[in-house]
Amino acid sequence: MNIKNKKLLNLVKSIFVKHKLNSYHADISAKALINAELVGAYGHGISRLKMYCDRIKKNLINPKPRIKIKKISRSISHIDADNSIGFVAADIAIKTAIEHAKKSGLGFVAVKNSSHYGLSGYYAEQAIKKNLITMIYTNAPPAVAPHGALKSLFGTNPICFGTPTGNKVPFILDTSISKINRGKLRFAERNFLKIPKDVALDKFGKPTNDPKRALQGVQLPIAGFRGSGLAWMVDILSGVLTGGNHSGRVKDPFEDFTGPQNIGHLFITFKTNLFVKDYNKRIKDNIKRVKQLPKVKGMKEIMYPGQNKYKRYKMNLKKEIKISKIIKKELEILNN
Amino acid sequence: MNIKNKKLLNLVKSIFVKHKLNSYHADISAKALINAELVGAYGHGISRLKMYCDRIKKNLINPKPRIKIKKISRSISHIDADNSIGFVAADIAIKTAIEHAKKSGLGFVAVKNSSHYGLSGYYAEQAIKKNLITMIYTNAPPAVAPHGALKSLFGTNPICFGTPTGNKVPFILDTSISKINRGKLRFAERNFLKIPKDVALDKFGKPTNDPKRALQGVQLPIAGFRGSGLAWMVDILSGVLTGGNHSGRVKDPFEDFTGPQNIGHLFITFKTNLFVKDYNKRIKDNIKRVKQLPKVKGMKEIMYPGQNKYKRYKMNLKKEIKISKIIKKELEILNN
Repeated sequence: MNIKNKKLLNLVKSIFVKHKLNSYHADISAKALINAELVGAYGHGISRLKMYCDRIKKNLINPKPRIKIKKISRSISHIDADNSIGFVAADIAIKTAIEHAKKSGLGFVAVKNSSHYGLSGYYAEQAIKKNLITMIYTNAPPAVAPHGALKSLFGTNPICFGTPTGNKVPFILDTSISKINRGKLRFAERNFLKIPKDVALDKFGKPTNDPKRALQGVQLPIAGFRGSGLAWMVDILSGVLTGGNHSGRVKDPFEDFTGPQNIGHLFITFKTNLFVKDYNKRIKDNIKRVKQLPKVKGMKEIMYPGQNKYKRYKMNLKKEIKISKIIKKELEILNN
Repeated sequence: MNIKNKKLLNLVKSIFVKHKLNSYHADISAKALINAELVGAYGHGISRLKMYCDRIKKNLINPKPRIKIKKISRSISHIDADNSIGFVAADIAIKTAIEHAKKSGLGFVAVKNSSHYGLSGYYAEQAIKKNLITMIYTNAPPAVAPHGALKSLFGTNPICFGTPTGNKVPFILDTSISKINRGKLRFAERNFLKIPKDVALDKFGKPTNDPKRALQGVQLPIAGFRGSGLAWMVDILSGVLTGGNHSGRVKDPFEDFTGPQNIGHLFITFKTNLFVKDYNKRIKDNIKRVKQLPKVKGMKEIMYPGQNKYKRYKMNLKKEIKISKIIKKELEILNN
């Protein structure tokens, strides 16, 4: 079934309000979910709505959080999100980091007691719109085995970096440290799709192309020891540093209802013109020079991170959003 | 031939002094080179000494730089290294970043007009000794092809992250974004060794295990589009942002004597206890939990980044440093 994105937005918002979020928080959360659909990150979209509502019902996400912002310096703040839905925590955090950077040149904002916030790139966009560069880290439930280990412990722990480009399409690298992101596994599982064979192992340590078995098993990090090290770095920056859960203690939001997630995030923002006056000219030149390189056969254009997502977003904005029968039914039940 | 590391240190120092570095700068530079030998990063060690001296002789590295430190805020400084040898620029930069972090919680120091500084991890160590967390970025001459391109443009652009661990062995991730680092290629070339076949292409775009051909060709990024994106991020953070060269303009120090390198670096440092009181306890717990995981067959211990390097360092400290005949001859000539 197809549905207009504005209609879906309103429906999701009303579902969040029915689950006790205030209208402002429901709006923030619904917009983040619809954005994930529009950029084609379906694993972070509407398919997660039921999970959020389930966790609210079980008091694992606090629909009426008393979020505390502790200002440490002109650049640094620490946010205790009081187990809010992650979207709201991240929204406050990036806004605080933007404010800090606008005033002092630099923002450094840590969040604890949060939950899954969707796509890091979505928050990066906000900073870029204010002409700031941003680096964002979050941890996530165990999915990736540390190099040498037979068991998952790190999350897919994305590394996100965003910068203005001097044109309307931002540079946003938002890459998980696993060969495939967990949202994509869930999407494949829900839609009975196969996954590539070299991205995950089943619970016995054997390669599998079955997303269900991969979800029970272990996702592989990119680049072996190096990717494992990057995932570890993200766990330290977003978990150990912030006061959030870490080292495998972040609960799987779909499967573990024994407590809140207490995910941690770290948002770093800074002005583009701290050290050079002509940043926009420089970044434009940088991108142009990369794009001018000779290309491998069949490659039309060398793309920078975020460009494809932006194209998908613009295209999808004109279209209706496709939802499966399962999701349609979920939405009906949740809206009752 | 074998030589005691202290003797080699003094020899290298005297060579630098003969090449017009002042005694303090020669000491900094010699220590960085010997450290690379001791941690087993031979591609960044003594084999580079002749290159540095050649560049000094050709006025491409300034042996008497007038380094300017522009303080922008309590946390932020911009350093113009005046084409100094990279070791000296990086040494001043990390010390400035440490000072900022000690005073304001956070240090953010950019460097322009620098040159190759060796191992990022060496500077990370300094910050960790002062109980700070650090993130360090530098760009480098073209070595890695952007995803989809047939020509090198990004450097091997390391991502470096370091943190105290609550024990004497620091956590230092210092990973280049190429499948193999350029120093290792050079080391293999000098010593007539082969390289793995999936890490580089020759200049015609074909896989090669010949380091010489790989050096003329293209190194491959880790993880395809993702690794390429990470390399791009590092080029922006260390080059576009800082006022350094970027997008392939950093000259190869061994081959291109048409001008100084103007490499850029970015040093970020911050206190471990910004957001939690018990960081040391938390990071100890984090590492312990990872180490306790069941291991893949044949794996004795799950290591964290930096652990192996530390072991090698401690071991090598007791031994003499092995130098090849070629290097021995170079040292003799340079010391004349």
